[in-house]
Amino acid sequence: MTIKKYETTKTIFKKVFNKETLKNRIPITRWLPRYSVSMWVQDCAAGAAVGATAVAQGLAYAALAGLPAQHGLYSGIAGGFVYALLGTCPTMSIGPTSIISALTAKYVQGLSIDFAVLAAFLTGLVQVALGVFQLGFLVDFISGPVLTGFVSGAALQIMMSQLKSLLGTNGGGGHSFVESIRNFFINITSVRPTDAVLGVSTILVLIVMKRLAVGCSREDKLVKRLRWYVSLARNVIVVVAGIIIAYVCHVTLGHDGTFKLIGDIHAGLPIVQLPPVTTTVGNVTYSLGDMLTTLGPQSLVIPLVAILEVVVIAKAFTQDVRFDSTQEIIVLGLCNMLGSLVGSMPVTGAMSRSALFSASGVQTPLAGVVVSLVIILSLSVLTSLFYFIPKAVLAGLIIVAVVSLIHLDEMRYLWRSSKREFTVMAITLVACLTIGLEYGVIIGVLIEICIVLFRIARPKIEVNFTVIATRDVLQIVVPENVTYCSGEYMRRFISRKVLEYDKNVLIVIDGTNMKSMDTTAAFNIMEVVKHVDKNIQVVFFSFVPEVRKKCLVLNCTFESKFVSGVSLEKFIGHSLDLA
Amino acid sequence: MTIKKYETTKTIFKKVFNKETLKNRIPITRWLPRYSVSMWVQDCAAGAAVGATAVAQGLAYAALAGLPAQHGLYSGIAGGFVYALLGTCPTMSIGPTSIISALTAKYVQGLSIDFAVLAAFLTGLVQVALGVFQLGFLVDFISGPVLTGFVSGAALQIMMSQLKSLLGTNGGGGHSFVESIRNFFINITSVRPTDAVLGVSTILVLIVMKRLAVGCSREDKLVKRLRWYVSLARNVIVVVAGIIIAYVCHVTLGHDGTFKLIGDIHAGLPIVQLPPVTTTVGNVTYSLGDMLTTLGPQSLVIPLVAILEVVVIAKAFTQDVRFDSTQEIIVLGLCNMLGSLVGSMPVTGAMSRSALFSASGVQTPLAGVVVSLVIILSLSVLTSLFYFIPKAVLAGLIIVAVVSLIHLDEMRYLWRSSKREFTVMAITLVACLTIGLEYGVIIGVLIEICIVLFRIARPKIEVNFTVIATRDVLQIVVPENVTYCSGEYMRRFISRKVLEYDKNVLIVIDGTNMKSMDTTAAFNIMEVVKHVDKNIQVVFFSFVPEVRKKCLVLNCTFESKFVSGVSLEKFIGHSLDLA
Repeated sequence: MTIKKYETTKTIFKKVFNKETLKNRIPITRWLPRYSVSMWVQDCAAGAAVGATAVAQGLAYAALAGLPAQHGLYSGIAGGFVYALLGTCPTMSIGPTSIISALTAKYVQGLSIDFAVLAAFLTGLVQVALGVFQLGFLVDFISGPVLTGFVSGAALQIMMSQLKSLLGTNGGGGHSFVESIRNFFINITSVRPTDAVLGVSTILVLIVMKRLAVGCSREDKLVKRLRWYVSLARNVIVVVAGIIIAYVCHVTLGHDGTFKLIGDIHAGLPIVQLPPVTTTVGNVTYSLGDMLTTLGPQSLVIPLVAILEVVVIAKAFTQDVRFDSTQEIIVLGLCNMLGSLVGSMPVTGAMSRSALFSASGVQTPLAGVVVSLVIILSLSVLTSLFYFIPKAVLAGLIIVAVVSLIHLDEMRYLWRSSKREFTVMAITLVACLTIGLEYGVIIGVLIEICIVLFRIARPKIEVNFTVIATRDVLQIVVPENVTYCSGEYMRRFISRKVLEYDKNVLIVIDGTNMKSMDTTAAFNIMEVVKHVDKNIQVVFFSFVPEVRKKCLVLNCTFESKFVSGVSLEKFIGHSLDLA
Repeated sequence: MTIKKYETTKTIFKKVFNKETLKNRIPITRWLPRYSVSMWVQDCAAGAAVGATAVAQGLAYAALAGLPAQHGLYSGIAGGFVYALLGTCPTMSIGPTSIISALTAKYVQGLSIDFAVLAAFLTGLVQVALGVFQLGFLVDFISGPVLTGFVSGAALQIMMSQLKSLLGTNGGGGHSFVESIRNFFINITSVRPTDAVLGVSTILVLIVMKRLAVGCSREDKLVKRLRWYVSLARNVIVVVAGIIIAYVCHVTLGHDGTFKLIGDIHAGLPIVQLPPVTTTVGNVTYSLGDMLTTLGPQSLVIPLVAILEVVVIAKAFTQDVRFDSTQEIIVLGLCNMLGSLVGSMPVTGAMSRSALFSASGVQTPLAGVVVSLVIILSLSVLTSLFYFIPKAVLAGLIIVAVVSLIHLDEMRYLWRSSKREFTVMAITLVACLTIGLEYGVIIGVLIEICIVLFRIARPKIEVNFTVIATRDVLQIVVPENVTYCSGEYMRRFISRKVLEYDKNVLIVIDGTNMKSMDTTAAFNIMEVVKHVDKNIQVVFFSFVPEVRKKCLVLNCTFESKFVSGVSLEKFIGHSLDLA
């Protein structure tokens, strides 16, 4: 016994730690041996391009989340290293994203940075747990309509929250779309023309530069290739242009009041420290418990939405069916947990940067390390330049980034193909805009689940009345899977249906399509016999052996009522012969 | 237009207020015109028998809920009148029941009577709402295994809580089974021999009297008929015997210390007043909000469990398929709401009294009025007698009543037919005993729902590899209903499956069994084409027109990939001919 046990342990050990598992769990072992200089060059080029964009977006998303600018950059560091080691999808760029930043904003506004960092740690913890316990399938419960409503709602809220910076008005942003609108109109008289002009120009320039790439690619000739490169670098270009404009104004006018600037950024690398377990806001000290309570439903919504973004990117950019979502979820969790050690907010895969990676011809996840190095470099030497970035430019950059998230085409499609699903989308959207993004998505998911449960509880039952060999037959076709919640309904449905027919009718409860039935439903189906007239014959036709057994354990005297392995016509013919 | 509108309104008016609807909504209009003297005699006899039992049980269940004895009697009054007017099932006896009393106990213990009365009002309100909004199907989500676990747990908790009164020990009862056990063993040295002997004797006598009826019926000859009557009246007999014993001790010994008695009962009818909206416990004043918060999850668990008891009784005692559960739910709600005006705790249909009604040959719901009158009579003239009821007798009565709720046979059946369902039952039972009854049933229901959702998210997909007319065919049979949460899974499942086969394989996504598919799933199924090798041909076979339309709106270029109205063999033969 001992030897066998030892062997089993050894086998398990072998199974867990063999080469194949290693390759799957630590994918860098899969591609690093085959790594070449040309791949390194391509990764470096792609990494530099995405790195520059990541810096611009990092600063912008920090503003969106209401964090000091350097935290936006901190958020981009850990992901690159962790994902290079453990990630599978080369095009995945882990870092801050507009939607996650908007979800985080709620807790920074009026509170402290510590909440964002703790949220990152918690997000990571929840994701690792979801991965380890194979609960990644939970994101499947965010349906297409709910996702459309949520993402569109997030985009609208983000755009609204950025109007303030875009036009240079005073006042706060607001927790939701509705609040942002109200705050904006209250302060509309404080629009600063300089910021407004710069902000709107940024948007126009970005739109034009985005169009530049149409019909161009990296393989084209000089002009077209240049257009393509300029288009890809558009985020960096507008930020650099913004810095130059602000700096020129600073030098020529001798003051910084022309535009609202992001101002001083803490230079240098972040200090590595454990995530905060207490924090002080004004005079109030929050214990860990208070902080967790404040984070509330976000602690599940942020991890799930983050996972969803990664899944969507993986689906868009990888044809590899070996893509292991469990692995990705755990890796994303580790990115968040390790990120929180260096002052990161919650992060996930960013669609815009992943698209840039893909366009730049990225080869391996090592490019992510290059991105992280670019961010670290900029933190070390460029922060004094970042001082001059006008807030209006960042706002313009964010607005253009999120406008593509409003999927009017999908809304139109839902309207055309299913009014029900359109309604779910609309409710989610409205809830996101009024109550808040996290509640919107929760409400949407709950509505979808209720619809699913209602359908299971009230399945459509097919009823056919036929005459087979002179015998009146009422054939009731049982659905594929019968669960407890529909058992009672089916019993009553059948009992009522029978009332419409003559007492000589033969009731055939046809289980041909049925694959499973639980005991509660089995009990109810058997009860039909008790609840119809005593003279009416009931036959349970073609039940799978497993269900048949379940029923017979309940009432073994019904054995003769179960008929299978013979056609209905033959059975009826035979029973008429006997009679 | 106006005329048409008027007519429509008139039609609706006619539809709502016609004779048939009246008969369905106010069932007394259905049976009262046909009421006869002989029916009246039978109803009176049955009502008197059940009424006497209702008094005994009312006093016992008040003790179980921790309420003053008179409230147990108040709880039995309103139901009889309301149900006679609006109820459909003659055997239904509305009043306090052991399980609902146990659920109520939690809020009376350490708090005040007002909580029980408010709970009755809220229970009624929720039930009427559930009925009006057709949400009665929610009780279907309490599956057989959860119900078995819950009811058995409730029975065990009730028995444990009554040990204290049965043996006359000191100390409190406890909120849960575990607490009751602990409190009992802490106080075990305070067992009073007199109470213990009386209590245990009550149990033995009740068991013997229950057995008396075996093989006897109302139609039998004198001795057998007498045995049958004695057996039916056993609850009343032990209470009367208890009173006599206590009274004799009182007279002979000159004091009441021999047994713990229920003591003074407030005589007379209850005062009609609105349910309490504030209450004071000790020095603490509870506002309506505080009271509702304290009631917490009970406010949904009590109404649903109450509805379930009514449904179970209706199923056991009525063969009438016209039984309208919506009507019954609303009536039960009205019973509770009106009951709360006369100081009732939450009530529902009582299985034991309904069985007694049935055995006594009840004819119409009017018998319920007789029951109410018996209770009112006893409140008016018998309360001085009730003073002498020993607590141990009531405890014995309760214990015998609930022991039949422990369904060991069902547990055994679950074990034999499905280990999964047995586990759900066991978890529910353990949660009921440790955390509390209401949480136990909630946990059980949530587990069942999670299992259902998981199955929908991860359906079993049938895959067949066949060769049809020299062509390799991979047939993937789509389940009956495909919902959004399984779409992504199916896409990946199919894409991976295809890898196992040659590139010349024809993939047939067979929708023959499929009845519905939502847009999220449709999108994912269509994506399969994108995620398999470009040389592999994919055919969507035999999709219902509705789903086909949904898919084509997404991507109209796929029209040629949809094949229906032809057998698979014919289609493949034809396509080979073309090639």
